[in-house]
This record gives sequence, structure tokens and C-alpha cells, in this order.
Amino acid sequence: MATARPLLPLLLLAAGRLRAAERSGGGGGSSSAMEELATEKEAEESHRQDSVSLLTFILLLTLTILTIWLFKHRRVRFLHETGLAMIYGLIVGVILRYGTPSTSGHDKPFSCSQEDRPFTTLLVNVSGKFFEYTLKGEISPGKIHNVEQNDMLRKVTFDPEVFFNILLPPIIFHAGYSLKKRHFFRNLGSILAYAFLGTAVSCFIIGNLMYGVVKLMKLVGQLSDKFYYTDCLLFGAIISATDPVTVLAIFNELHADVDLYALLFGESVLNDAVAIVLSSSIVAYQPTGENTHAFDAAAFFKSVGVFLGIFSGSFMMGAVTGVVTALVTKFTKLHCFPLLETALFFLMSWSTFLLAEACGFTGVVAVLFCGITQAHYTYNNLSVESRSRTKQLFEVLHFLAENFIFSYMGLALFTFQKHIFSPVFIIGAFIAIFLGRAAHIYPLSFLLNLGRRHKISWNFQHMMMFSGLRGAMAFALAIRDTATYSHQMMFSTTLLIVFFTVWIVGGGTTPMLSWLNIRVGVDPDQDPPPTNDSFQVLQGDGPDSERRNRTKQESAWLFRLWYSFDHNYLKPILTHSGPPLTTTLPSWCGLVAHCLTSPQVYDNQEQLREEDSDFILNDGDLTVTYGDTTITANGSSGPHTATTSLDGRRTKSSSEEALERDLGAADHEVTTRGTRLVFPLEDNA
Amino acid sequence: MATARPLLPLLLLAAGRLRAAERSGGGGGSSSAMEELATEKEAEESHRQDSVSLLTFILLLTLTILTIWLFKHRRVRFLHETGLAMIYGLIVGVILRYGTPSTSGHDKPFSCSQEDRPFTTLLVNVSGKFFEYTLKGEISPGKIHNVEQNDMLRKVTFDPEVFFNILLPPIIFHAGYSLKKRHFFRNLGSILAYAFLGTAVSCFIIGNLMYGVVKLMKLVGQLSDKFYYTDCLLFGAIISATDPVTVLAIFNELHADVDLYALLFGESVLNDAVAIVLSSSIVAYQPTGENTHAFDAAAFFKSVGVFLGIFSGSFMMGAVTGVVTALVTKFTKLHCFPLLETALFFLMSWSTFLLAEACGFTGVVAVLFCGITQAHYTYNNLSVESRSRTKQLFEVLHFLAENFIFSYMGLALFTFQKHIFSPVFIIGAFIAIFLGRAAHIYPLSFLLNLGRRHKISWNFQHMMMFSGLRGAMAFALAIRDTATYSHQMMFSTTLLIVFFTVWIVGGGTTPMLSWLNIRVGVDPDQDPPPTNDSFQVLQGDGPDSERRNRTKQESAWLFRLWYSFDHNYLKPILTHSGPPLTTTLPSWCGLVAHCLTSPQVYDNQEQLREEDSDFILNDGDLTVTYGDTTITANGSSGPHTATTSLDGRRTKSSSEEALERDLGAADHEVTTRGTRLVFPLEDNA
Repeated sequence: MATARPLLPLLLLAAGRLRAAERSGGGGGSSSAMEELATEKEAEESHRQDSVSLLTFILLLTLTILTIWLFKHRRVRFLHETGLAMIYGLIVGVILRYGTPSTSGHDKPFSCSQEDRPFTTLLVNVSGKFFEYTLKGEISPGKIHNVEQNDMLRKVTFDPEVFFNILLPPIIFHAGYSLKKRHFFRNLGSILAYAFLGTAVSCFIIGNLMYGVVKLMKLVGQLSDKFYYTDCLLFGAIISATDPVTVLAIFNELHADVDLYALLFGESVLNDAVAIVLSSSIVAYQPTGENTHAFDAAAFFKSVGVFLGIFSGSFMMGAVTGVVTALVTKFTKLHCFPLLETALFFLMSWSTFLLAEACGFTGVVAVLFCGITQAHYTYNNLSVESRSRTKQLFEVLHFLAENFIFSYMGLALFTFQKHIFSPVFIIGAFIAIFLGRAAHIYPLSFLLNLGRRHKISWNFQHMMMFSGLRGAMAFALAIRDTATYSHQMMFSTTLLIVFFTVWIVGGGTTPMLSWLNIRVGVDPDQDPPPTNDSFQVLQGDGPDSERRNRTKQESAWLFRLWYSFDHNYLKPILTHSGPPLTTTLPSWCGLVAHCLTSPQVYDNQEQLREEDSDFILNDGDLTVTYGDTTITANGSSGPHTATTSLDGRRTKSSSEEALERDLGAADHEVTTRGTRLVFPLEDNA
Repeated sequence: MATARPLLPLLLLAAGRLRAAERSGGGGGSSSAMEELATEKEAEESHRQDSVSLLTFILLLTLTILTIWLFKHRRVRFLHETGLAMIYGLIVGVILRYGTPSTSGHDKPFSCSQEDRPFTTLLVNVSGKFFEYTLKGEISPGKIHNVEQNDMLRKVTFDPEVFFNILLPPIIFHAGYSLKKRHFFRNLGSILAYAFLGTAVSCFIIGNLMYGVVKLMKLVGQLSDKFYYTDCLLFGAIISATDPVTVLAIFNELHADVDLYALLFGESVLNDAVAIVLSSSIVAYQPTGENTHAFDAAAFFKSVGVFLGIFSGSFMMGAVTGVVTALVTKFTKLHCFPLLETALFFLMSWSTFLLAEACGFTGVVAVLFCGITQAHYTYNNLSVESRSRTKQLFEVLHFLAENFIFSYMGLALFTFQKHIFSPVFIIGAFIAIFLGRAAHIYPLSFLLNLGRRHKISWNFQHMMMFSGLRGAMAFALAIRDTATYSHQMMFSTTLLIVFFTVWIVGGGTTPMLSWLNIRVGVDPDQDPPPTNDSFQVLQGDGPDSERRNRTKQESAWLFRLWYSFDHNYLKPILTHSGPPLTTTLPSWCGLVAHCLTSPQVYDNQEQLREEDSDFILNDGDLTVTYGDTTITANGSSGPHTATTSLDGRRTKSSSEEALERDLGAADHEVTTRGTRLVFPLEDNA
């Protein structure tokens, strides 16, 4: 048994049952029978309370589900399910806080002194019988008498690690797995910029602003304990994790602009990963020597190293397990048995998390990249049944986990015992996140627009600014450590920020969309601007326009290299799609190529799978530093490239052609699906 | 946080991380920083080991899945996936046992004396810092020095309650939910007899035989500690839980006789429930006074009361939550949102377990009946997508949980630290389970055959005798309490019995099937004996043959009452199928009837859903005590009833007619599907 804290009240259900007490109860009429019976009763009582506390949450979720249905049924959009879950959580929290007796008889603490540092296991001699105890955690000396708490409140308070190790992984995996690849990859450059640069900028600005606030509080005398600069930076990292579930749900429902959706979704997914790793790096920033406030270059670079190490390690872990799953599903005929396939998929995805944690990386980040890899490669190898099974399985898990976290948040506002609400800090935090978000979106968008052929328009920027909701990730990061005064204040503030943003911003999304004239009712499979400019620019990527290509590849060569490598080698090796390796590999490795290529490929060679065409249609976003403004100007690429692609198709069987074919397919889609009702409220070019 | 043992190493992943140690690590350069760092390192090490131990299990399951695929691919049937999982578990167990260092530095026990009975929470003062400990359990005095164990072995040893509270529920729920209702209900009488009477008989006989063995061991001097009569009975209850997964998997694959399948499956599903409740009742049997060996009538009747109370309470819990789910899914339009529906279904089914546990009943039993109710009512209300979603979700959970348990069993043979293998006891147990099974199957079958129109033939009885495998449930019951000498011996013996039966019996199923001439390749939707006798007997149930009905209803009236109640009131109230309540309820409750009847019913009234016809087609099994042998004789019911049903159809709109229509539908099925290849190796009439 793991020598651990009870991590899983969420699922544990039978926790407090002390089987020890039931042991010799079978037949022996020992003298301590009465005593044992008392212990057993107590244990059963505890077990019952566990069940009741879990039932409370299930009731909450059930209520939420029923109300969501009502809202969806009546097309109410001002309150999202997560906001609703929070409200129900709040109500139950109030009831638990003020409606249950505040102290309980048992669970009395017992003190005995010991010289050394604490052991993980403790044996206690109680009137001749030995009982085993496990270490739960340290308690700050001032709080000893607070250990006697309301029993029910304790029961509904989960170990923070539950969020990180059980609830977040399915949410994050689902985010990666359900990524709409085409739009994600088309905007990859901008998304990466927003996620990495943006989060760092936001973290730094919020951290510094909060340090100012803390200084001010010290001056005014509002601060009663220590609050270091690193704490402020940690707060910056925690609160920089955006989670626009509400906005995205409404976007999905209204079919809002797909590019904006991709930008927001991609940014929030990746920025969660960045925020986690950032917060670990800040915790790792421990300057040596006495003056811990001074800047320590060595410690700083160590932190940067930690960031890079954890991030790339987690990325690798995720990618590797994804690739392994793809290989396994490709080279076995597991797809004949969808149940086995689904189970394998689930286990491999879970093992990513464990592997990363075992190696000291961040499981949640690894799971994200695993999800993306699984969606990109493994998904193609799965049987039709497994595809829907895996999607649905993770969708259900994601839904339950997300709503659980949000209802827990509502509950925590009243049941969490160590809240510190400081009005100055809270107001400062709201201003700081506003400024931090602004300093992240507008300057970055400006820089990105220099390179993007397809500009991020002002109303998109405003919408992104507006959509900076904080959600599950910020909460999970904040609750992870609530031991010190500063962290408790940060947690309480984070909770309020989540509430405010989810309710106000979530409710304001629909009005905001119409106020900013963002088009809705867009077919998600459709190419974003149904105007003729981007299409012609894209056709310009055909092999015939090599001169233009060369200038373009100066900037996008890395991505093009990756695309052709992925298309020519990775896809054929890992999946049943793509061109046969026999044509893409040099002839001297013909045997290997033949072994690795799946027989289906030869059949599929002409009719490319639709999944494949999801990959990239437009590299307009990749030319971040692209300087040739005459071509990046809207629609100014001229019509001279429009006809070249047709003959190009017959000359080369390379990734260029595939790319082009993808484009052709998209073009076709546009024309066939273009009949549906679109409200082109704005040209956003 | 629940004051509990770490129940969930299965999912916990990050258990040992003592966040306390990381608390002031953010910015403060406190004097105890080094000490904290050491604790943190230790905690991280523990966390890593947790991850590694879970990874071990995932690796095991992955290997199992891949090998199963290979076996299925090559149609190898001598080894089932569960047997395979055990073999891999064994191998890893050997490696862990003999390949890892045996002791570890930390986890040293610390003793300090205390007067009172043990507290649930303990505060320990370690050089001025306070640490919180939680009670894990009692340790018998002789074992104190065994607490220092191999760290890795401890990590892979789960809390027994994990099996009961996390792994068994999905397995049992899936069993209930995937029940093939038609064949189950057709054989309900026999199944109930086998499950209740049979299990009790088997438990009692095994218990008594084992008590003889124990007496013998005492005489020979092989027994070194106490072994009470109640322990023997408990062993009888534990080992009476059959789990013919292997046999049923092969039956499924070969499409063996559906009635035999229903008998075996139904018996094993219900007998698990009986065995759990039986074992709780035996534990509750605590005779008062000094002489605990004497028979105490009061304690005995208390045990019987406990059995009835727990069983009926759990049954009610399961049925009630199932009915509530059915009502919710019927009266909301949740089926427009399959995700919400699936989530609700999952939550409600889980809440059954918690509710039962909170009320002091048995969650696993409640979950079984919940599964059956959900399948019977709720399933009809679900959207098509949710139907497959819920089925698949629970199928995956079941698969993972089952294979996990079996691979854990393999592992436990080597990693469990307190094995006591007593050859005499083991040999005695094998003989006892053989005799117990024989005393359960043959006499009961004889008695049932007196009443069954459709006899359980000798080869069916032999097959049932042969299929008495022990599996997950026996293991979970045995591992639940391994504190005393007798329980440890029982656990080790149970483990060996599971191994032996799964490997030998599992491997011998296919030869046994052909040796016993049991027909394979049967269409599961087909009525069992495609001879004309049963059909005509069935048609005799039409309303016109009331004289014969009256004699029959003397025995089957209870079931007929239930069927008509279910069909006329429950189905229409709880689902969208069945006749409209406005026709079945008396006219004075017309308004209520109108409200409760769903509009679809009026459309569906004529075309009965196929699910409905699954219910019962043949009540041949219900006439257990039916004495009119001239009619129960095969095919001797005469042709005079064959034509009456046609005019009967037009006279009455009652459950009789529905039953009859079901029969008509079944008849139709026989004629349309009768073309497929069937090997009628035996007439089994």
C-alpha cells in the first residue's frame, strides 16, 4: 500500500473503514470486543460520511446536468454549465457551512514528542495493541487547535493533488484529443506565440503589479505576514492560465469564426501547460544566500533551465507514448477487436501521465501532447468503433471532471477553512489581470500581424482580450499549496477571479460577439474567409511558383520541413495513410520501406483520407517574420498563380502535392458547402 | 479531507507527495530548509515509486491486451485473457519478489505508548514542528518487525477495499446491464434457485467439510493457530462465489446453447451478490457468552435477519435509483444531448453504490440490481447514441477492472507478504469445492427438473458442474480481511483455487463442450429448442385456454402478476414503450394516466419495441412446482391450443395479449432466422 495521504476521497467511497477493528470479530470472544466494536462503529460512521460527501457532489452534478439541459433546451446562453455548477456548489457550501454542527467528538489530536524528522509510518501502542499510522502532512503550529473542525466540512475538502492527478488529466487529454487540427495548425505560429510569449509576459506583468500592490499593503498596514516577490510571480503564473470553456462553448454553439476559435482554444490549451511548468519553475527559483529578495542570476537561469527541461521532457514523453500507441495499433490487427483497442488506447494514454510523473516531468503537460499525437496519428489507425468510443469516453470523463471542479470551486468558497480575503489585494489582482491580459494580447497581436498574411483584426483582439477567463487550471494550481499566508490569500483571490470571470464574461459572450461584429454561423469545415484572396494565395504554394516559394520558405522552412517529414515519413510509418514509403524513402532502404508501409496505403494512395486533409490548408500564419509585404497584402498576390496548380499536380508525388491536394479538397468543400446560411457581418481581413 | 486510509493507489498517482514540505520553499530561507528539502525528496521518491508501480500494472494490462489479440487472432481458446493476465502477473511478481532489494531505509516504525483506544488522527511533535498522521490499521503484536518490508512490494500491494469499492462495481454493474434479459427471465426460477439455495448449500457443505479438515489438521498437528467454525463457514461463503468469465467468453464465441449460457451467467451474477451478503452475515454471527463454538439460535437468526435485511435493502436501493433514472430520462428531453444523458446515467448508477454504502447496505449488490433496472427501463428512454455510449463505457471499465484484478492476483501470489500454504487445507479445499459444487448442481437440478417443462439435461448439469470457476469476487472477498492466521490461510488457498480453476477449467471448456455434445453455433436471438413442442405449449397461454391457464397460474401467478404489472404500469410509467396508461389504468385516474403516458406510446402502441419482446417468451421455467405432468411432458400439450391464439388477439388489450404478441414475434423470428447454420448435436428436451 502506498504510504500516502488519502488522495482519492473522490472515488474512494469506503475510506475510513478500519478493517483492523473487524479482524478478530469473526468468532473469538476476546476481552477487547467492546472496544473493537466501538472503533468499528466509528470507522463505519466515517465511511458513511465519505459516502454522503461523495453523494453530495453527485447530487450537485446531477442537478447541474438537469439545469443545463433546461438551459440548452430553452437556449439560455447567459449562464454556462460551469457557472451553474459553481452556483450550486455555492449553495451547498453555504448549507454545509452554516447548517451542520461545527465540532465533532472524535478525531481528537494526540501529541507526543519525537527527536528526529518525521517518519512516514508510525506505530502506536494503545493499551497493548499496535496501530499503524501514516503521515498526512505538516500542520503549522498556530493551527493545531484548528484541527478539530467540522467533520462534514473536512469530508468535502479534497486533497489538492486529486485535481492534478485525477481531474485535470482527462480534461487536458480531451483538449488535445479533440483539437480541430486543421485550424489549430493553420494558426500554430500565433498560438505558440500567445501561449509562450503571452503567458510569460502576462505572468511577469501581473507578478510585478502584484508586488506593487503588496508593497502598498505593507505601507498601509494591511499585510500581516510575509509576501515575497516569488509569491507574486507565482500568483502571476497561476492566474495566467486562461480557460475560456464558457466562451468556446458559446462559439461552438453559434458556430463563430473558426480562426478565432482556433486561436482562443489553442492558446488556452497550450497556456495551461506553460502556466503549470512556469509555476514549477518559479517554485524551483530559490536564490542561495541570505538576501532572498535580490536577483540571483544563477537561480534564475536554473529556473529557466527547469522550465525548458520540464517542458521539453513532458512534450517528449507525450509524443513518444503517442507514437508507440500509433505503432502498436498499426502493426497489430487490434482494430478487429474495438474493446481491446479502446482499452489499449486508454492505458497507453494514462501511462503517459505516469511515465512523466515517474521521470519527474509534468504529467498534465505530457498528457496534452499525448492527446495531440494520438489524434494526429493513432486516430487514423483505429477502427471506426474505437474512434467514436475513445472520443466519447474522454468526452464523458472531461465533462464530469470539469463540472466537478467547478462545483467544487463553488463549495470551496464556503467550506475552505483558511480563506484570507484582502480587498486591496483582490482589487489589485483584478486590475493586474486586466492589464496583464491587455499587455499580452495587443502588443503580441500587433507583432503577429506584421507577419500574418491573414491579420488578426481589432475585434478579434478585443474578443481575445475579453475571453481571458480563469478556470479549472488556475484553481488547481492555486489550491495545490495553501500552507502559507501568502498562498492562502492567493487562493482566495483566484477563487473570486474565477467566479467573476466565469459569470460575467461567460454571460457577456453573446452580447460581446454581436457587439464586436464577429461572424457566427460559420461552417467549421469551411475555409475561413470565403473571399477569394486567401484561396489564391494558397494556390500560390504549388510547386510551379517556386520563386515565390523560396522567399516564403525563408520563414516557414521549419514548418515546411516538418510538414514534408511528417507527410512523407511519419504518417506512412505510423498510420495507414500517406504515400507509400517505397516512394518516399531512398531506394536502398526498399526492404525496410516495404515492411513499414501498410498494404492499405497502396489502395489509399489516390484517395487521401479526410483526416489527412485536416492537417494544414493555409500556412498564412507561419510567416511570422515574413517581410515581403507585397505578397502578404490582402488579396494582392494576383491571379497569376491560380491556374498553375493543375499541371503541378501531375508532376510530383511529394508533400507539396499533398499539401496542394489538401487545398484542392478544401476548395471543393467551400464550393459545395458554401450554400449554407452565413452571416458575414464583418470582413475581418 | 477524509480521515482515511489511502484507498486509491490504483488511481492516486501522486500519493506520497507531502506538500507540507514544499510549503515555505517558495521564497523563505528558513533554517529548516535543508530538512524540508530532504523530506520533499523523500516524498518525491515515494511519488515516483507510486507512478512506477502503477506503470507496472499498466504494462501488465497492455501486454495482456496484446497477447489476447494474438490469441483471438489465431483463435487460441485454451487460455482466456484472465488466465493470461494472471500469468503475466505471476512473472512480474517473481521479478519484484526476487529481483528488488528487500529492505529500505525509511518507513521506520516509531513506538509511543498511549492509554486510551486509538484516535483516528494523531499529531506528532517533531523537533518543534507538528505533523498529522492518520490511522491505517492495527498490526498484530507478532508482526511489528515485519513492517519493515520491501518498499516496492508494499507499493504494489493495494488496499483490499480498492477491489470492493472501485474495481468490483463496474464489473458487477456491467454484468447487470449487459444481461440478456429474455433468456435470463425465461430461466429466472432456476437461476434464483441456483443462486440462493445453491450458494447457501455450497457454503454450508464447504464450511462443514473444511471444519472437518481443520479438525484433522489439529489432530495431525498441522495447525498452529486458532481456526473457528465461523471461519470455515466464511471460507465456504467466499469460495461459493463462482465467476465463469472464461467459460462464458468461450460460450459467447462459439455461440453455445443460450439457455445454458443464461443459467450459468445468471447464476454467477446473482451468486456473487448472495456470497457477499452471506459473508457479511457470517461475520455478523457473533454468539454471545463464553462458549463461542456452541450453536446460538439468537445469533443465528440475527445473521439470517442481517442477510435478508442487507439483501433486500441493497436490492431496493438499486431498483429505486434505476427507477429514478428512468423517470428522469423519460420526463426530460435529455436525449437530445447524449453527453448529458450519459453523464447523468453514470452519476446515477454510481450514486446507487454510494447510497447503499451510506445506508449500511452492500454497494456492489445494489449496483447489480441498479444495472438490471437500468437495462430494463432506462435503456429504453436513452437516445441511440447514449445506448451505445453507456454500453461501451461500462464495457471498457469492466474489461480494465477485470483484467486488473486477475493480473493483481498473479502478482499477489508472490508479493503478498503473509501467505500461509497448508497442503492439507488446500487439498481439503479442492475436494470440498468439488463436493460443494456437486451437492449444489445435481440435487437442485433434479428438483428443478421436476417442475421445469424444459428439463436441464445431464450434459447441461455436467457442464454447470464443470464451470464452477472462482474468480474476481472470491479473491476480493478473501483479500478483504487477511489479519488473522485463519484468514491468511483462506486467502492463500483461495488464490490457488482461482489459479487452478481459471487455467484448467478455462482451458478445458472447448473440449468439454464437444465431449458433452452441447450444441454450439446457436443464434442467441432464437428461441431455444426449434422443435415444435415448446411453441405449442406457449401458444396455449393465450386468453382462450383459460382452464389450463388457471392450473398453470397456481404456480406462476406471482410471475404473471409481476409481468402484467410491469407491462401495464411500470413500463408505460417509466419508459416510452408499453401500452398507454389511459387504457390500462382505471378510468377515474385518466388525468394522471394522461400525464404519465408519453406521447410516443400512442404511436408505438401497435409496433411493440424489440426490447419489450425481450422480456419473456416462455414461462416454462416458472412452473417450478407445477404438478400437471400430462402437460409438462414434451410436446404432449396437444394441438388443440394452436389455433386459439389468433382470435384471442382481438379480444383483449392486456398483458396477456402483449405476452402473446411477444410470442408471436418470437415465432416469427424463429421462422425468419431459422435458416442459419445450427448444429443440433443434441435435443436437450
